[in-house]
This record gives sequence, structure tokens and C-alpha cells, in this order.
Amino acid sequence: MDSRKLLVDTMSELMWERGYSDTSPRDVRERSGVGQGSMYHHFPTKRDLALAALERNVDDLVPAGSELDGPGDPMARIEAYLMRPRDVLKGCKVGRMTQDPQVREDPALLAPVSRAFAQAHANLVGVLREAIAARELRDDLNPEQLAHTLMAVLQGGYVLAIAQQDPGPFDDARAGAIDLLRAASPSVLNQERN
Amino acid sequence: MDSRKLLVDTMSELMWERGYSDTSPRDVRERSGVGQGSMYHHFPTKRDLALAALERNVDDLVPAGSELDGPGDPMARIEAYLMRPRDVLKGCKVGRMTQDPQVREDPALLAPVSRAFAQAHANLVGVLREAIAARELRDDLNPEQLAHTLMAVLQGGYVLAIAQQDPGPFDDARAGAIDLLRAASPSVLNQERN
Repeated sequence: MDSRKLLVDTMSELMWERGYSDTSPRDVRERSGVGQGSMYHHFPTKRDLALAALERNVDDLVPAGSELDGPGDPMARIEAYLMRPRDVLKGCKVGRMTQDPQVREDPALLAPVSRAFAQAHANLVGVLREAIAARELRDDLNPEQLAHTLMAVLQGGYVLAIAQQDPGPFDDARAGAIDLLRAASPSVLNQERN
Repeated sequence: MDSRKLLVDTMSELMWERGYSDTSPRDVRERSGVGQGSMYHHFPTKRDLALAALERNVDDLVPAGSELDGPGDPMARIEAYLMRPRDVLKGCKVGRMTQDPQVREDPALLAPVSRAFAQAHANLVGVLREAIAARELRDDLNPEQLAHTLMAVLQGGYVLAIAQQDPGPFDDARAGAIDLLRAASPSVLNQERN
């Protein structure tokens, strides 16, 4: 196997498990089995390797062909996105980087994290606009704000679930968000009026 | 000043700024000015000190007499709780502990974090029930789930704001949540019908 790819995969896993600050170059070498010479050939510093690993983890937050781009009604796609199975107690491999002191103080390391969230936000805003146009959501809602609300529900759901060591609060948070979205449908008004 | 209190205050600050893993006993001594002998007298280990500091930080998440307990309509209290000014780019001093590898793997250190969120959840569930009873919220909403949704909006809002180094996404997330809550009011139906 390509040793560069092996290093990036291993760093990506370790950053998800322990974060950046707590992962040493030796940890990466021990888990990957790649030697010191080869490691320094590909990545002169831990930060270089972390940048490559972050780029990889970021692709997982905004996967090509996600539920949001799929066929179906806009609201069904938003619900599918929220309900996607996730490894809740491990947390979000991108979001957790914001809590890592060495990442949050390093603009270069924070940049891929910031880009990933901006992309996820743009995708969600697009589908929320479609849902409003399709009269699945009230037209007085602000898609830019609401997209951040839904992203925060997922990111905060991880925090609550890890605190309780139980995926329950994550599932609650997204189920409650979906109930609120459904209550914000103009068709609810129609049903009540009929 | 009492050196025990000074140590706890300093550890509490450092854990908020850098987390637990990245804070050394020497960091605490240097910032507090408390000597090594006095430190080990009060707190034989860094973990003992961290437990005392966590207990303190947890009180800030669930402050006595918070907006939730105040006078006013239940929904107005929920909105005041969501809109409370917060030091967004520093993050939540309790929530961030869930991302600290040494905290999340240590049940004793995670326990105060878990208790704090359970208490905040119970408080919010109580006020959401009042809001439903007062017909400010639809009675088909699940207060237990919705309380986790609102807590996740705040916790996730910090993550999004830190990623962008901008409090905007935090403010968006809570504004969007308030819009959804208002859309989930049965009085919206009444207004539409009139």
C-alpha cells in the first residue's frame, strides 16, 4: 500500500479519536507501520500531515452525492440528511477540530474546517430554498439562519451524546428539529383550516 | 486570596481556554502564582484539581436564577435563555470537555459534564411543558426531544462559530431556532384562520 496514503489515513483516524494536539508523529508511525524516513519524506512536519488528513476528513462532512442532492422532495432530502446514520459517540471528525486548542489557534489548520462548514451551509441553504419554493416550508423563514440551526443541531447533538455516553440526546435533537420543521410547513395551516 | 480558590479559578480558566489534556500543573502554578507545595497540599493530582474546576464550570452552565426560572411567559423565558449574551468564540466551558480525549475517556471527569447537561435538560423540559400548557407551543411536540434540540443548537452554534472565527453562525442558529419555535405556536394557526 502507498505509504503516503497510509500516513494520511492513519493521521485522519487518530485526529478523529484524539484530536491533533494529542497525536504525536510517533503515534502515527506506530499505528501505520511506516518508517520515520518515509514519513519525513512525505510530510516534513506533523502539521503538514495534519493538513492532508484534514482535507480528507472534510470530504466526509460534505460527501459528493449526499442525501441533499438526491431525488425526492426537498423536505424529504433534508430529513434524510438529518437522519443519516452517524457514529455518534465518536463525534464529528470535522467539528471536533474546533475544540482542539492547537487547531483553533492555527488559521491554516482551521481553514479546511471552515471551508467544509461553509460548503455544507451553502448546500443546505439551497435545499431549504427549494422547500420554501415548493411550499413545504413557510416563506417567512430565513434559509441562511435555518441552515445554521440544522447544522448546529447535529454538531451540538454530538456534544450532548458524548457527555451522556449515549446516542439518545443526538437522536432526540434531530427528531425534535424534524418535528419543528414539519410544524413550520404551510400545509399544517391548510390541514387545520380544512 | 485563598490559594485553594485561586488554583480552582485558574484551572477553570485554563480548561476553558485549552482543555484538560493541554493544561499542565506548571501552567496552573505559573498563572496563579501559587507554589508547588501549596498546590500539592490542596490537590495531589492534576485530576483532583480538574474535578474541582469542572464542578465550578458546571455551575456556570446551570446558573441559579437563570432566564428559565424568571418571571414572564414560558416562551419568552425560553427565548431569553437562547438569546443570553455568550462568549461565543471561547466556546462552552462545559461542552468543550466532551471533545477532550482525556476527559471523555475518564468517567469521573465526564460525570459533572453529564450531570450539568442533564440538569439543563430537565429545566428546559419543565419550561417547554409550561409553554405547551399555556398554548404557546403545539401539544403534539415532544418536550424531552425539543429540549435536546435547543441545547444542541447552542452547543453546535459554538462549533460553527469557532470554525468560522465569527459569532454569526451562532447567532443565526439560535435565531432560526426561535423562528421555528414561533412557527410551532398554535396561535399561528389561529391568526391564519382569523
